Amino acid sequence: MTAGMAAGRTTETIERAKQEGKKSLILVVSKGGADMAYPSLILATTARALGMEAHMYFTFWGMQLLTPEGRKKSMDVFPPEMQKAIAAKFPSVEQFMQQAKQAGVHIHACSPTMDMFGMTKQSLVNEVDDVIGASTYLELAARPDALTLVI
Amino acid sequence: MTAGMAAGRTTETIERAKQEGKKSLILVVSKGGADMAYPSLILATTARALGMEAHMYFTFWGMQLLTPEGRKKSMDVFPPEMQKAIAAKFPSVEQFMQQAKQAGVHIHACSPTMDMFGMTKQSLVNEVDDVIGASTYLELAARPDALTLVI
Amino acid sequence: MTAGMAAGRTTETIERAKQEGKKSLILVVSKGGADMAYPSLILATTARALGMEAHMYFTFWGMQLLTPEGRKKSMDVFPPEMQKAIAAKFPSVEQFMQQAKQAGVHIHACSPTMDMFGMTKQSLVNEVDDVIGASTYLELAARPDALTLVI
Repeated sequence: MTAGMAAGRTTETIERAKQEGKKSLILVVSKGGADMAYPSLILATTARALGMEAHMYFTFWGMQLLTPEGRKKSMDVFPPEMQKAIAAKFPSVEQFMQQAKQAGVHIHACSPTMDMFGMTKQSLVNEVDDVIGASTYLELAARPDALTLVI
Repeated sequence: MTAGMAAGRTTETIERAKQEGKKSLILVVSKGGADMAYPSLILATTARALGMEAHMYFTFWGMQLLTPEGRKKSMDVFPPEMQKAIAAKFPSVEQFMQQAKQAGVHIHACSPTMDMFGMTKQSLVNEVDDVIGASTYLELAARPDALTLVI
Repeated sequence: MTAGMAAGRTTETIERAKQEGKKSLILVVSKGGADMAYPSLILATTARALGMEAHMYFTFWGMQLLTPEGRKKSMDVFPPEMQKAIAAKFPSVEQFMQQAKQAGVHIHACSPTMDMFGMTKQSLVNEVDDVIGASTYLELAARPDALTLVI
């Protein structure tokens, strides 16, 4: 898709969203590999570009993306030559997450996962907005205007 | 999240849900490991605590969680030391599924999967409410008040 | 589920969908194995049988299902004896995708993935309707009548 196409669609989509309802994207990121981090970050930043609210709720293996080491290791799901090809065209997962954050994407860490794996808030990357539980997640996801996806 | 926070949010969320729509959680559980069983069971029981209807539709690899052997083997996705850490803080998958059932979570087995893998109803755990197909699942998921997630 | 049950439910579900809203199924297929291709194709064709619009958006590893070689290799996730058992009861992934297409399922390829992996449109199977980006996908998924699932 070219930038021109995206821009054309943006106006139309914002208009539709305003009229018809789904104004926020609530992503559950449950996997720790960059193969699932990239699609999540592409969706979240695209949602922001379309004028939607965007939330990423990192849970279970996805919580590895919220630690400095885990975020780096996330590229290990790709063979070395593919890592190079991706690095030539896309920002790193760390850079992409920082860009998402700057674009207004909300980054939530999962408290039951931290409890299960014995993680501390201090071990998490700076991009994390808050630590929330399943109840708060469901509150977000149950909103009638929410588009909720588990990745 | 503390129990107090959860309780405070509960009232607010129930009020919202009553007014605005999404009153049921329809989970598709497509993976057989405990790493996806725990998040599913946490979400389903939290939904019940919030006053929502909750359905778990086990399909494909997820059907392994509905056999006594598969449910036990589901912990093999974790290394032994992590299994111990989880067992110290959380109920087993079997116990958790029984608690979910007692809390009113509906447990559905997938008929096309049983057909594909040659499984019989007799081989399934007692917690199963019924065996349904893609059509019945879509009927549940297409309800306007449904929050549908695939895990 | 017998064909009779499905037929009975079909009428009821179409009536409900007409009245209440969710009239289209938007599937994101993010995995390249036949273990996720079959559930996706079962859901998409069932949605069509129920009178719903159906879209499959193949992204990331799922794009492998849109190349002739990848589609064949997708069965490698199963051990040989399971491959035989499935082949005895179900169409191949290729045949199933052709049937889905004939039933009116829309097949979308993901442009950021093609960019990331250096894929060309010429390398894709004939069943592909178009190549779209995250923005167009979100436009589909944000429709109030859309049931959106990531598989």
